[in-house]
Formats: sequence, C-alpha cells, structure tokens
Amino acid sequence: MINWSTLSAAEQTAALARPAMADSAKLRATVADIITAVLERGDEAVLDFTRRFDSPELTTLPLSTEKRDELASRVTPQVQDAIQTAFNNVKQFHEAQYPQDIKLTTTPGVVCEQRFTALEAVGLYIPGGSAPLPSTVMMLGVPALVAGCERKVLCTPPNSAQEIAPEIAYAAKLCGIEEIYLCGGAQAIAAMAFGTQTITKVDKIFGPGNSFVTEAKQQVSQRADGAAIDMPAGPSEVLVLADNNADADFVASDLLSQAEHGPDSQAILVTNSEALINAVEAAVATQLAALSRNSIASKAMGNARYILTATVDEAIAVSNQYAPEHLIVQCDNARDLLPKIKHAGSIFLGPWSPESAGDYASGTNHVLPTYGYARNYSSLGLLDFMRRYTIQELSEDGMRNLGPAIMQLADAEGLDAHRNAVGYRMTKLQQND
Amino acid sequence: MINWSTLSAAEQTAALARPAMADSAKLRATVADIITAVLERGDEAVLDFTRRFDSPELTTLPLSTEKRDELASRVTPQVQDAIQTAFNNVKQFHEAQYPQDIKLTTTPGVVCEQRFTALEAVGLYIPGGSAPLPSTVMMLGVPALVAGCERKVLCTPPNSAQEIAPEIAYAAKLCGIEEIYLCGGAQAIAAMAFGTQTITKVDKIFGPGNSFVTEAKQQVSQRADGAAIDMPAGPSEVLVLADNNADADFVASDLLSQAEHGPDSQAILVTNSEALINAVEAAVATQLAALSRNSIASKAMGNARYILTATVDEAIAVSNQYAPEHLIVQCDNARDLLPKIKHAGSIFLGPWSPESAGDYASGTNHVLPTYGYARNYSSLGLLDFMRRYTIQELSEDGMRNLGPAIMQLADAEGLDAHRNAVGYRMTKLQQND
Repeated sequence: MINWSTLSAAEQTAALARPAMADSAKLRATVADIITAVLERGDEAVLDFTRRFDSPELTTLPLSTEKRDELASRVTPQVQDAIQTAFNNVKQFHEAQYPQDIKLTTTPGVVCEQRFTALEAVGLYIPGGSAPLPSTVMMLGVPALVAGCERKVLCTPPNSAQEIAPEIAYAAKLCGIEEIYLCGGAQAIAAMAFGTQTITKVDKIFGPGNSFVTEAKQQVSQRADGAAIDMPAGPSEVLVLADNNADADFVASDLLSQAEHGPDSQAILVTNSEALINAVEAAVATQLAALSRNSIASKAMGNARYILTATVDEAIAVSNQYAPEHLIVQCDNARDLLPKIKHAGSIFLGPWSPESAGDYASGTNHVLPTYGYARNYSSLGLLDFMRRYTIQELSEDGMRNLGPAIMQLADAEGLDAHRNAVGYRMTKLQQND
Repeated sequence: MINWSTLSAAEQTAALARPAMADSAKLRATVADIITAVLERGDEAVLDFTRRFDSPELTTLPLSTEKRDELASRVTPQVQDAIQTAFNNVKQFHEAQYPQDIKLTTTPGVVCEQRFTALEAVGLYIPGGSAPLPSTVMMLGVPALVAGCERKVLCTPPNSAQEIAPEIAYAAKLCGIEEIYLCGGAQAIAAMAFGTQTITKVDKIFGPGNSFVTEAKQQVSQRADGAAIDMPAGPSEVLVLADNNADADFVASDLLSQAEHGPDSQAILVTNSEALINAVEAAVATQLAALSRNSIASKAMGNARYILTATVDEAIAVSNQYAPEHLIVQCDNARDLLPKIKHAGSIFLGPWSPESAGDYASGTNHVLPTYGYARNYSSLGLLDFMRRYTIQELSEDGMRNLGPAIMQLADAEGLDAHRNAVGYRMTKLQQND
C-alpha cells in the first residue's frame, strides 16, 4: 500500500511509472528483415513465415468467403447471439459518431467547406494466440463498415488446419469483411502496408498485436510508401478510483480483468479508504486462485499498486497524473466527478460498469490509448476510419473582397508569385468591369 | 509535355513519382545528438544551439508579452488589417468545426458517450528563415485558440537582435499566445517535447520546418516520453486540373506560387488541352523572370510536369492517382467535378480560387498532407487540437440486460476474470432482488 501524501513529488512520479518498454535493437532488426523479405519476395515470403510460425501446410493466403461462412456456421447459437448483441451496440454507437460536413461563407463570395470521407482501404489486424478475439474484429470492423471503407482487409494467423477461429469468421461476416488473409505477425503488417501479388496495399492499419506486430506497425508508418497506423501501443492498464462504499469483490474482479490480459498489464487502485484496500487485497487473493489464466494474472498483480489518498479529489489528481487507458470510477455519485477527470481513454462510471462491459458490448470501442497516451491520443472511433479535406471557392466578388488582403500578406511574406496569382485575377476583373 | 495515354502503367507511375526524400543517417544522428543534449542539459543546450545558429548574444529563451506587444505595434496598419482579415476567416471556419459530444443509450440501461476535449498543451513551431510567416502562426494558433488549449507554446528562431518578426508577434497576439520562446530547429522541438527548466513539456507539436525540424518531430513522436505530432512532412505540391477555357496566366501563376516555396516543390498541370499547355509554358517563362525568388522557383519548375490527357475525366483520374496536397480545378463547372475527386488535401474550385487564397485568408487551414499522404491523413483542423474519449455507465438494469452477453463473450475468449467482473455483479443483483 502506497500512502500518497507521504511521498515526495519524485516518489509520486516513480509510484505511477509504467514499465519501460523494451527498446530492442534485435527486435527492430528482425522486423526490418521481415519487411525487406516481404518487399522483395511478396506472397512467397509471407507464406514462408506463416508456414514457419503458424500453419506448416499453408499454400495460399486468401480465405474465401465460402470458407468464412462455413467456419462462421460452427459458432454456437448462444455465442452468435452474444456477438450479434455486441455488434448492434458497437454499430449504434459508431453510427452516432458520423460527422457532419461543413459549408460556410467566411467573407461574401468566399465559401469554405470541410468534408469527411471514408479511407479507401483499411487493414485490420487480429492477433491469434491462445484465445480468439471476435470482439477485436468488431471494434475494428464495425467502424470500417459504418465509415464506408471500400476495402476492409483482415489479416490473422491461421491454425495448423489452415483455418481461423469460427468466432472470428462469424464477426468478420457480420462486419461485411470479404478480404481475409491467413497470415499474422510482422509479415502480415508488411503485406498490408506495401502490398503483395495477392494483397493490395491499404491506406491505414489498425489493431493490437505482439511486439513484432507493434514494431512492424511503427516501421511501416515511418515510410512514405507504407501505411498510416491507428495509434502507438503499450501494455494495457486500468486504474480503479474508489471510495469507502465500493464493493471489494467488484473492484478486485476489475483489477484482475486487466491482469489476465498479460504479465505486463498494469492494475492500480486509488482510494481514500484504507479499509477498502485491505478488503480488495483479500478478494484478489481469493479470486486469483480460481482463474484459468492464474499465472499470467499473478505476474501482473505482482506489479499492481494500491494507493491511499486523503480524499477523493486527491485520488482524481493521481488518476489525472497517470492518464489511464481504462478508468473505473466506483465512487458515490460517480458522474458528478466527471468535470474533474482530465485524462483517460475510456471512463466506466459507477458500480455496474465493469471494464468488460466496454471490452465487449456496451458500444464503446475497446481500442484505447494506453501507456500515458491518453493525454494526447484519442480513443479509437469512427473518425479514425475517415479523412477530412477542405474545399474553397471564391466567386468574382469573393476575389474582389479578399484579394487585397491576400496580396498584402503575400507581400509581407515576400512571396511574389503568391501575390501575382491574385494580381492577375484582380486585373482581369478590372478589365471585365 | 507528357502524353498520358501513350504511357504504360509503369511509365504513368514514374511520371507521377515524387522526389525521394533523403534518408540520411547523418541527419538522424545529428538530430538524435541534439535531442540528447537538450534532455541532458535543458535550457543551457537550447541556448547554446540558438546562439550558434540564430542569435549569438541570446541570454534567455522566453519572449515577454510586453516585448511581443511592442514588436506587434511595429506592424504597419495595412498589414495589421490584412492579418486581422485572415484571422477572422480562419477563426470562423475553425469555429464551425467545433464537434458535438454524443450521448446514446445502446441497450436499456447502458449509456455510452463520446466527448471531445482540448489538448492541454500544444507546441506551435514557426520557422525562421528568409521571410516571416504570420500566416502559419494563424493556421496553428487559431485552432488552438478555438479548441481552448490551456497552454499554447510558440517556438521560433530569433534574429541577431534577439527579436522575432513583428508580423509573427502580431499574429501571436491575436491568437492569445503568451508563451513564446526564442529558439528554433531540432533543439526547439526537443525542448517542447521533453521540457526544460523554463519550457514545460507539451502534449503535441504542430508546424512546418526544415529537415532538422521534420526529423526531430519524427524522433520525438516515436518516444513515449516525447510528444505527438500533427502529420508527416514532405515537399509542398500543387496539381492544377484545367480545361481548354482556363486562363493561362492564372494557371501559370498558381504553378509558380508553389514553385517559389522551395526548390523541391512539385508543380503539375494536368489538362486535356494541348493549346493550354503551350500557353501556360509561355506564361510561366514570362512570369518567372520577374520573381524575386526566381532562382528557387526556376529550380522547382525544372521538375514541373505538364500532362496531356484525352479527357477531363482522365485528368481527374491522374489527380486521384497522385493525391495532391493542393488541387486547383480550373475547369468549366468545377464544382460538378467534386464527386469524382477522391484524394486531395485541399481543393480550390474555379478560376477565382488561387492557392494563395487558402494559404492566407479564405479560412481553410494551409497545413495539409503532402507527398501522397492526402490518401490517408487529414487536412489540419480543429479536431487535431482536441482529443476524443468515451464514457459508459450501466445501471442495474443495464447490467441485467447486457451481463449475459458479456459473460458469453468472455467465455468464448477464455477470459475468466472478465466474466467474473460481470458474474459478481449479477449475483449481487440477484441477492438484492
């Protein structure tokens, strides 16, 4: 237990420090080599890597829509219903985010517009590994669907039977994803960013992944011939802000939800109640023992922090300093605290709003800025699948009205041709008058 | 003159190729050294570099608001008026971009919200060099003002009198920028990203700059302890789409407006009229001779391309393939062509809408995605100075309604603690019932 008010500013900063991310020259070089291989040998390189890491018998990258639908049909009706429920909520919430175009006359005769348009081609990366992640398919696929992206490309590593999890196929079908490729890792990111013989290059790549995927996304986003990416990545994290009335079992289960994601997950409780800290520690011990991912969650809980503050306001200040990816507020009148909360990726208000609600089904997106990026990056949303551009149209009157100011400014900046572009037009207008 | 339809696909791609950006290991290392120096020695390092490159007598980084206002008062009334006109239009257009928060009930008892908030601290970089750029101050300062950013930090290199251009001071005053620091280059970017003794770190850095500035922005954006940046950079570019009725002098002056920015600027004319190409080439030769930045513009025009297409539709296809930063449409009924235009940072419609209108005063932002990034990045706008985050709140009924689906999905993904976080709550609700 950390008693916040007894710490110096430096100790407070240290108490909220995130684990250093490995800055591995070896990882960078390995990923660079994979990218080079994909650039040079295209499909053949992607197939080679996929056979080595995922599916030894694989002969072709695309998964047909027939196969997708056949796999989807294997999902139990109960899970189909649950995926459909989540899909409906996520779709509603992202449809509500659809932006309005703007058209404005700033000066008589000068019309300015801002328009939104869907990105043409988006790449959605879905990790493989121990458990299938249909929820991530929806968090990426639904906004791409709602935005109206022409091409939605999904890459995910196949299993040894050259198949993908039925739940992923089912979610992809709901999202109208027709381009599915059986590949994962840095090779999949490279294939989407640069294109191969069978995978046409995309404009932007979304989704979580292991350190190879994360590094590959960084590298392709640095190249003009690569692709944009959704946001920088880091270990997942939750901060629970609680007062004396919070339910210790609820709080413990929320901390453990985060902890079971991975051994580097961060779980932090900040409260003005020492009794709650004691009760939560006991509840964590009990609940942890029964988890199937006990060893992962145990490791993560080894880094958990229980921070005691003098007041709820001080607890909020701690949260603002940390800028958590997920912020769960289990305080009386949680909503009333919102005006004081400054930095968080997604906020879960009150006792009945566990992180798993947002992870799966409330409607919000579970792709969120972590590692302190909640200060300067947005939660994933519809706008990330769109692009803004502007239009301006001056009439003859617009040119008459604004031309002199433009010429004055071009003069001030010493740019003759900028001034001339207006000057020739003003002269022509005077000739016409 | 390039006759588009006679080219193979590979030749067409080559005809639209942008100049390779120098990938200089030396530049990377130099900038990394500057960043390290600023991290280690703070203000002292920034002062050292600034004395070496910009202002030999400089002793302190901040420029007081009194000094800002004194410098601003030196601007002539004519230029003050012109800056004020531009400021008013840019402000109107960016105010119109203010986003609406969203609040939605996705399932009875499940409320989801998306809220927008200003970034707390933004860094605005204004280059020094041959001409002052008050227009860039406005393009960065106005959206920061409209968004409501708490701190607006401006860095710009001082002259040998430890001062900045009066026009920059005047524009900064209009935008309410009170933190001005006398430094430029990679050292200014490092100071804003990491903070020094006098410059408190910012969340995101905006603005154009030379190759050191661009490289520094890239490097600090790759570090979790650094800052986000506005967008990747590249040489500025214009594509003019014109038909037989376009005015050759107008087109030539627009191409030259781009060309005078720098020797690597790209100027492209695409038209279905061979007569127009001939007339524009003649007009360029005449106009170019009279420019004060003749040598820069001449170099850039050496790389200009005149592309002849069979039809206006084919010309639009060429533009879509190129994805220009600035697209000027000097065709009959220019507005009717908009539905066919896919990728451009900002579009200038009709004969009376030169690029210089948008560069200075129409109201649109002149910070735009270039180098092909118009495919996957947005024009700078108000939203770049804000952050989106989400909120969810489930009532007891919300938990009752959505809990079973969440548990089903957590089961499908093998995440026990996620299921338990709902399970404990459902049990408590049943006990309460």
